[in-house]
Amino acid sequence: MTNRYGAQFGPDITFLGVGRCSLDDPASYAGADIVIVGAPFDGGTSHRPGARFGPQAIRMTDYLPHDGARPSLALRTDGLRDLRVLDAGDVEMPPGDILASLSALEAAVEKVARAGAIPVVLGGDHSIAFPDAKGVANVLGHGRISMIHFDAHADTGDIEFGSLWGHGQPMRRLIESGALRGDRFLQIGLRGYWPPPETLDWMAERSMRSYEMTEIVHRGLTECLTEAFAIATDECDGVFLSVDIDVCDPGHAPGTGTPEPGGITARQLLDSVRRICLELPVVGVDVVEVSPPYDHADITAALANRVVLEALSAIARRRRDARDGTAWNPLLPLLADRPDR
Amino acid sequence: MTNRYGAQFGPDITFLGVGRCSLDDPASYAGADIVIVGAPFDGGTSHRPGARFGPQAIRMTDYLPHDGARPSLALRTDGLRDLRVLDAGDVEMPPGDILASLSALEAAVEKVARAGAIPVVLGGDHSIAFPDAKGVANVLGHGRISMIHFDAHADTGDIEFGSLWGHGQPMRRLIESGALRGDRFLQIGLRGYWPPPETLDWMAERSMRSYEMTEIVHRGLTECLTEAFAIATDECDGVFLSVDIDVCDPGHAPGTGTPEPGGITARQLLDSVRRICLELPVVGVDVVEVSPPYDHADITAALANRVVLEALSAIARRRRDARDGTAWNPLLPLLADRPDR
Amino acid sequence: MTNRYGAQFGPDITFLGVGRCSLDDPASYAGADIVIVGAPFDGGTSHRPGARFGPQAIRMTDYLPHDGARPSLALRTDGLRDLRVLDAGDVEMPPGDILASLSALEAAVEKVARAGAIPVVLGGDHSIAFPDAKGVANVLGHGRISMIHFDAHADTGDIEFGSLWGHGQPMRRLIESGALRGDRFLQIGLRGYWPPPETLDWMAERSMRSYEMTEIVHRGLTECLTEAFAIATDECDGVFLSVDIDVCDPGHAPGTGTPEPGGITARQLLDSVRRICLELPVVGVDVVEVSPPYDHADITAALANRVVLEALSAIARRRRDARDGTAWNPLLPLLADRPDR
Amino acid sequence: MTNRYGAQFGPDITFLGVGRCSLDDPASYAGADIVIVGAPFDGGTSHRPGARFGPQAIRMTDYLPHDGARPSLALRTDGLRDLRVLDAGDVEMPPGDILASLSALEAAVEKVARAGAIPVVLGGDHSIAFPDAKGVANVLGHGRISMIHFDAHADTGDIEFGSLWGHGQPMRRLIESGALRGDRFLQIGLRGYWPPPETLDWMAERSMRSYEMTEIVHRGLTECLTEAFAIATDECDGVFLSVDIDVCDPGHAPGTGTPEPGGITARQLLDSVRRICLELPVVGVDVVEVSPPYDHADITAALANRVVLEALSAIARRRRDARDGTAWNPLLPLLADRPDR
Amino acid sequence: MTNRYGAQFGPDITFLGVGRCSLDDPASYAGADIVIVGAPFDGGTSHRPGARFGPQAIRMTDYLPHDGARPSLALRTDGLRDLRVLDAGDVEMPPGDILASLSALEAAVEKVARAGAIPVVLGGDHSIAFPDAKGVANVLGHGRISMIHFDAHADTGDIEFGSLWGHGQPMRRLIESGALRGDRFLQIGLRGYWPPPETLDWMAERSMRSYEMTEIVHRGLTECLTEAFAIATDECDGVFLSVDIDVCDPGHAPGTGTPEPGGITARQLLDSVRRICLELPVVGVDVVEVSPPYDHADITAALANRVVLEALSAIARRRRDARDGTAWNPLLPLLADRPDR
Amino acid sequence: MTNRYGAQFGPDITFLGVGRCSLDDPASYAGADIVIVGAPFDGGTSHRPGARFGPQAIRMTDYLPHDGARPSLALRTDGLRDLRVLDAGDVEMPPGDILASLSALEAAVEKVARAGAIPVVLGGDHSIAFPDAKGVANVLGHGRISMIHFDAHADTGDIEFGSLWGHGQPMRRLIESGALRGDRFLQIGLRGYWPPPETLDWMAERSMRSYEMTEIVHRGLTECLTEAFAIATDECDGVFLSVDIDVCDPGHAPGTGTPEPGGITARQLLDSVRRICLELPVVGVDVVEVSPPYDHADITAALANRVVLEALSAIARRRRDARDGTAWNPLLPLLADRPDR
Repeated sequence: MTNRYGAQFGPDITFLGVGRCSLDDPASYAGADIVIVGAPFDGGTSHRPGARFGPQAIRMTDYLPHDGARPSLALRTDGLRDLRVLDAGDVEMPPGDILASLSALEAAVEKVARAGAIPVVLGGDHSIAFPDAKGVANVLGHGRISMIHFDAHADTGDIEFGSLWGHGQPMRRLIESGALRGDRFLQIGLRGYWPPPETLDWMAERSMRSYEMTEIVHRGLTECLTEAFAIATDECDGVFLSVDIDVCDPGHAPGTGTPEPGGITARQLLDSVRRICLELPVVGVDVVEVSPPYDHADITAALANRVVLEALSAIARRRRDARDGTAWNPLLPLLADRPDR
Repeated sequence: MTNRYGAQFGPDITFLGVGRCSLDDPASYAGADIVIVGAPFDGGTSHRPGARFGPQAIRMTDYLPHDGARPSLALRTDGLRDLRVLDAGDVEMPPGDILASLSALEAAVEKVARAGAIPVVLGGDHSIAFPDAKGVANVLGHGRISMIHFDAHADTGDIEFGSLWGHGQPMRRLIESGALRGDRFLQIGLRGYWPPPETLDWMAERSMRSYEMTEIVHRGLTECLTEAFAIATDECDGVFLSVDIDVCDPGHAPGTGTPEPGGITARQLLDSVRRICLELPVVGVDVVEVSPPYDHADITAALANRVVLEALSAIARRRRDARDGTAWNPLLPLLADRPDR
Repeated sequence: MTNRYGAQFGPDITFLGVGRCSLDDPASYAGADIVIVGAPFDGGTSHRPGARFGPQAIRMTDYLPHDGARPSLALRTDGLRDLRVLDAGDVEMPPGDILASLSALEAAVEKVARAGAIPVVLGGDHSIAFPDAKGVANVLGHGRISMIHFDAHADTGDIEFGSLWGHGQPMRRLIESGALRGDRFLQIGLRGYWPPPETLDWMAERSMRSYEMTEIVHRGLTECLTEAFAIATDECDGVFLSVDIDVCDPGHAPGTGTPEPGGITARQLLDSVRRICLELPVVGVDVVEVSPPYDHADITAALANRVVLEALSAIARRRRDARDGTAWNPLLPLLADRPDR
Repeated sequence: MTNRYGAQFGPDITFLGVGRCSLDDPASYAGADIVIVGAPFDGGTSHRPGARFGPQAIRMTDYLPHDGARPSLALRTDGLRDLRVLDAGDVEMPPGDILASLSALEAAVEKVARAGAIPVVLGGDHSIAFPDAKGVANVLGHGRISMIHFDAHADTGDIEFGSLWGHGQPMRRLIESGALRGDRFLQIGLRGYWPPPETLDWMAERSMRSYEMTEIVHRGLTECLTEAFAIATDECDGVFLSVDIDVCDPGHAPGTGTPEPGGITARQLLDSVRRICLELPVVGVDVVEVSPPYDHADITAALANRVVLEALSAIARRRRDARDGTAWNPLLPLLADRPDR
Repeated sequence: MTNRYGAQFGPDITFLGVGRCSLDDPASYAGADIVIVGAPFDGGTSHRPGARFGPQAIRMTDYLPHDGARPSLALRTDGLRDLRVLDAGDVEMPPGDILASLSALEAAVEKVARAGAIPVVLGGDHSIAFPDAKGVANVLGHGRISMIHFDAHADTGDIEFGSLWGHGQPMRRLIESGALRGDRFLQIGLRGYWPPPETLDWMAERSMRSYEMTEIVHRGLTECLTEAFAIATDECDGVFLSVDIDVCDPGHAPGTGTPEPGGITARQLLDSVRRICLELPVVGVDVVEVSPPYDHADITAALANRVVLEALSAIARRRRDARDGTAWNPLLPLLADRPDR
Repeated sequence: MTNRYGAQFGPDITFLGVGRCSLDDPASYAGADIVIVGAPFDGGTSHRPGARFGPQAIRMTDYLPHDGARPSLALRTDGLRDLRVLDAGDVEMPPGDILASLSALEAAVEKVARAGAIPVVLGGDHSIAFPDAKGVANVLGHGRISMIHFDAHADTGDIEFGSLWGHGQPMRRLIESGALRGDRFLQIGLRGYWPPPETLDWMAERSMRSYEMTEIVHRGLTECLTEAFAIATDECDGVFLSVDIDVCDPGHAPGTGTPEPGGITARQLLDSVRRICLELPVVGVDVVEVSPPYDHADITAALANRVVLEALSAIARRRRDARDGTAWNPLLPLLADRPDR
């Protein structure tokens, strides 16, 4: 295909071996269900960098062959084969120019959405959530998509290091821009000591709904998610899912920029992503803040890779169930009823 | 003693300082309850190697003195003293010759079983489960022992890298060989994207019972185990326990070859091993896939060391309870009723 | 201020930027609510050293600015601003002279307590619990404070490496000294294979109450804590909280000297510390056994930093609730009822 | 002092405990010989980031007390005491805005130079060499200072990732700006496969003098330096010394962004820096590309710390020798002639 | 192209982005000068494994774009562009079947040699030297090529772990097979405590010439190489260059299986490889024993990548000089005489 | 044998498999040439601890079998077989009681020396040099042995952390005690910024001879050693060799407590140790400051292991040459003249 940029860092690989496309060549991704986009940017990090290598790590980290197939044991679908999944490579994002970088990414995501595909953006630091969600909203309508946001941090800061743009601020910018409604903004997993009260006040005024870990522990994650799902689908046509890997406890995800102790487990994150993609009309996904220099034995990258696969598997299953009038049963044993697969 | 091979790698140490024996000298292990065997082999790994150093790491990793004593706080037995535990050292297993290696290990395990002792094999990659379980079944009768298998992966592959033998295939080979019955094969902790459907079909046809993480999360591990125990003891005389350390989440066990996010916790694994060895007639154990080069601060090796100790402590307690007509009470406070110890 | 010793290792920093004081200059800490003291000592470790760098790591490890402010999302207080918190720097503790070191620390803690402040001691290995708790008891009265002790180990050994002093013995020494009552000694999280039965007998004879992990798993941590709280406040005026970071599973806290698999999660530890400091009259705190050389990506140091912040936040909240006649509600959503903050 | 910014990341520490000043408070650094400035910026890195933590690491990494004194065994001066050395803290440099960041740094360096002090800038990636050298040249005169540049890379690229600014381009920008003359630009240690021939042609046209490792190996580093010194002092009033730590072999300096095998040793770097600062009129120094996330056991940070100390010690000795009419003798045994110190 | 196997582990990448070919499709590599072959095998390692990931690491580890171009500063050629370089991907080499693996590799190398190209094999452990050199000799004639072998170890063992095949034995097997003459076998860098005297006797009887580090230190590496070159070209038509990365000191190459302290520097290795490929008729190359799990910050992989580039650059220069009647001058400054490039 | 203490940490192993002895059982080491003693102590470290695990790491770190044999390629002797080498295990050294620890070690070393064997002590931090050298001098006569001391640091401090004892002070204490003469004290490799001038004055007054790196670089290590050898053997009967691994550059020995950039290479250290043990009457050796927690891929431990082997090999060669009237020839090629071995 023409003009493929490839990878900003390292060899031009695709997510577990799926096919390539180029965002400069619309024919190359026509008819795609999913287009993966790399956002190798960490110029927005307020502390540990390294997320620029997130896309490479998330694409590569798996012990299975890079054959473009991944049949899910749990969901009995193959997210990479039952959907048409393509990888557009990276968007060029110079680390020292955040405005140019985010703008290029927004254009890329918008192209994907306009082609009717779901963009799955591999970060990169969380500043990319602004172009990711806005790019989709530019197509589906400002105010027409809700956000489910897994994170230890609200990312609703105003100004940091003298700048309006950074990985602590994308959610504020999204709401201010009108692309997303504050009252359809669901946050899961917040904890710790940031942001300060005045920022929380701003969030409350926008009617955001943030589930801090205390509420999650006391009510249960399942109940919180159910409540959030109802809000997310009220007066919105689609849901954007933004997963900051630091929503997990640092024991499960050490390779990240701003680890906050006391998070959810990897199992909880995977189950939540599955449920969201099974039950809700997901229109875009990003997985962010994987920082390979701080990872150990690739466990954080592997988790992020599985978050992507879980999302794709569940989207595939949701579509199959919609088509076949079936429903996934979590109690079905793995080897029972094999014709069901 | 004569002819002790010792260690394939590094100094000739024993598990936490228990006594030595040599499998070439039957007198040296006559009357043993437990014989520990090292299987320093990673020639069967499909991805990250390193499990060849598992036996050394599992034997050594403990902050307490290597004095051959470990009184369990929870079970009030000393698995290393209340049983007669000996360490036979390693079996020589050249990494480039899997058939010769597995054959040598099968002969070694069979010797232990024939002497009336329980073999506890320290892996090594999971390809060793074939000789481990078959070696026991050769003595106790093909089809007479069931398998409880903790793992993220089913290990029932057919051919990999052009070979019938490797760490993804031992369970298939065991069932095909007739040594174990497919319908007495219990798997706990499977998850992820392997094996593919045709392999699952083969498993279903053999009536294997595999508890994928979804079922474990939705029903609870306790209930799943109880169900599995009933199957394991139906028409079988003994149970082989095979623990692949990757059943745990990579956060708890990063030092392994094929880490799959979303596993059980270290606490859950230890409690499960305890319960199995307290409630079932265990006739063999292996602990596999500990890969020290990928470990951090020895936490995976320490976990595997504790899996072995938990098994031995529970076997000792089971024997004492059988002898004394007593029963272990998990609700008894540590310092209550001290004469009970 | 005069005569500030500063840091035994590295630059003279304070906990997240709070103000400095010098224990040799009483005016410098007059009126303080909390005085942080560094105990950079690992001469008492029986295995992996490194805890000497614990104070530095706990003070520094945070991705937020070192501005002496940390507003808690969960508790709606700022533990560093709503209380008057000062950092006295380190006590000089030569690693090769444990008696001199512990004696110097006891004097330091006693000064803090005598000034009416709560000492928060950053270890250092657990041998420092003796001077920490004794220093407080010297002021509040021997036998008048209870101990809540999170740990994988009982730390009630008698003699180790020929010495009465080390990180496995402080609790025995505290009880023998009369500073603390055995029957007001609550231990949470014990597990594994130490101490031996004769030591447990000694503990039982002193009527200590130790919650081994089995009891915690079977009864639930919440219920165990509630029971412990009742004991802790019976006939005692204050509670000393000693947190050995190895109470957590090594997956959550790898950077420690004697990691024992199967511990509680970071989330459980933080919630427990919060509850203790909200519900009980805490008069002293230490956080020990953080060993940076064995840490990865600073996750253990970050956890210890958050243990301190959780304690301070909860103490601040407890004081505010007492003053205002309010009560903390864990079910209140983060953004609800913002005037409450 | 007023308005000190302090540290962009972590606690506000100074280089090994020297005194503080604030660049916003001229009185605070009046009369200083040396002002240390932190440039915590890695938004210009083309590959591995992390150099933002370079200033913190270089300031802290030493096993000796942070007491603001370092008597050199070799040079018999104390670079921190015999000179008046102050640390101005960091310049705020948002990683995503390279133009704003470099501009702020240029202003800071210019302030130092204007006050008559030598700026010693702790990077940060090498993009900071532009403001570092230009800031000095703005005061001493464009074209009046030469550059001695240790590096594996020429850093004379034109456009990278679509930008004129980054860590591969500062030397080109410096020459283009007129601040520095191409024919007084001396490069030591180049090697590998970058830049491409057209860039080398550009360099040749500007009459730069670059010593690739082949020439250094065949002629000897000593001879190359002597030749370079003659050029550097021809028609120039001062020398700027820019040390990219990757001039050393990765075995000596693994913690860097773009390691190129085959470099000089740490010993050679230290001896070269010593000689430059003893023999030449150094007017500014930077030490760049230390990336702590990729370091091991802090060896790269320690080397950079010693580069700074070596420079300061030699500057102090040069001044003393000029004052006393003495000369340093490298053959003098350490303990000989002690009155000389 | 048809039937390309790709990569045994991870994505199908090529060496720094050069073109692909398939050994099963002769047209795909017709006319190539160089064919790169991956040998991802560590089933022959006697101690630390991990070399199976060597090919991936050597192909990927570079901070420059993967654009298939690398102009050498020193040699003024582009080894990837001035030659026709293709990458055939990996040979499938199951770790547990060394005989099948080596046999498959021999066939692959032979194909390359028969096509008139120079095979450059990326190991893998050193057992691959047998098929590497024999595959070439099968084409050019047994006894017609000499070997220059950089290594800490002689690799002339007879039987290890009961097997004739492993990474300590390939050189003996090569000589025994008749493919290579013992008296045209040059070894550089041996040291330490292996092999035992009886093996050295065998080597002496075959008239091998082995330069132990003592001789290299006392005579100088340059002189030793010159002497070796004369032997290598006497009665032989070509030279096979086998580089075990452990010839370097562990400080320069920690990521290897059997590190032996006291080796040459990275600079010395690169200069030696350059000289060999400039001065001798090299007909095959392998670079072995890079073990990524034991590497730090990829410095060993980067060194191996540069060994390959140095070889290709020098081969390209040798060919150009032969064609143009020119000669490389190591004393020429980098920027002098630019038309020469 | 009776009463063997074994290992303070971990399993009771011996140096590469040599035989055991017990210092409490004189018969067990009667007739020994060499007795290895472990000094697992780091209570004297002023900064990074971890050297307590030095003895274990030095004994274990080798990729060859632990068979008690190591034929030296260079010296053509087997230091473990041609001498009678025994390993006495560790001396118990509680980290918090430096006086008791050093005293126990002195008694142990003295026993070895009194039996006519050469003690080789594996540290441990450098505080052990006091008992090591004094223990030997107690037998051979105070003032009758000289010291050759490889180190980055002079270790002649007076008081640190308020104590006379620590790893920065042993050499002062040795001279003050009268055990060693200051004018027979040769130090090689000093550098950096410690000790301060007043300590250097003390050293000069005692007529110590310290070769700082500047002198070594300018005169050459060979010449410095030759000069030192003449001093060492003047009026002394024996030489004690104390090797602090930090004499090497941190790139070659990162796993140490106080790494000082700019040291000698591993090759230089090994060659120096060889020459000392070949040319001088060595009566005791220690190897100290190996800190495994800070090591990478065991390269520092491997180097220390080779320092011991080099010493033993050279002692064996010296004895053989003395017996046979032969002399070692460093220019002899490895495979030449094989009957010479």
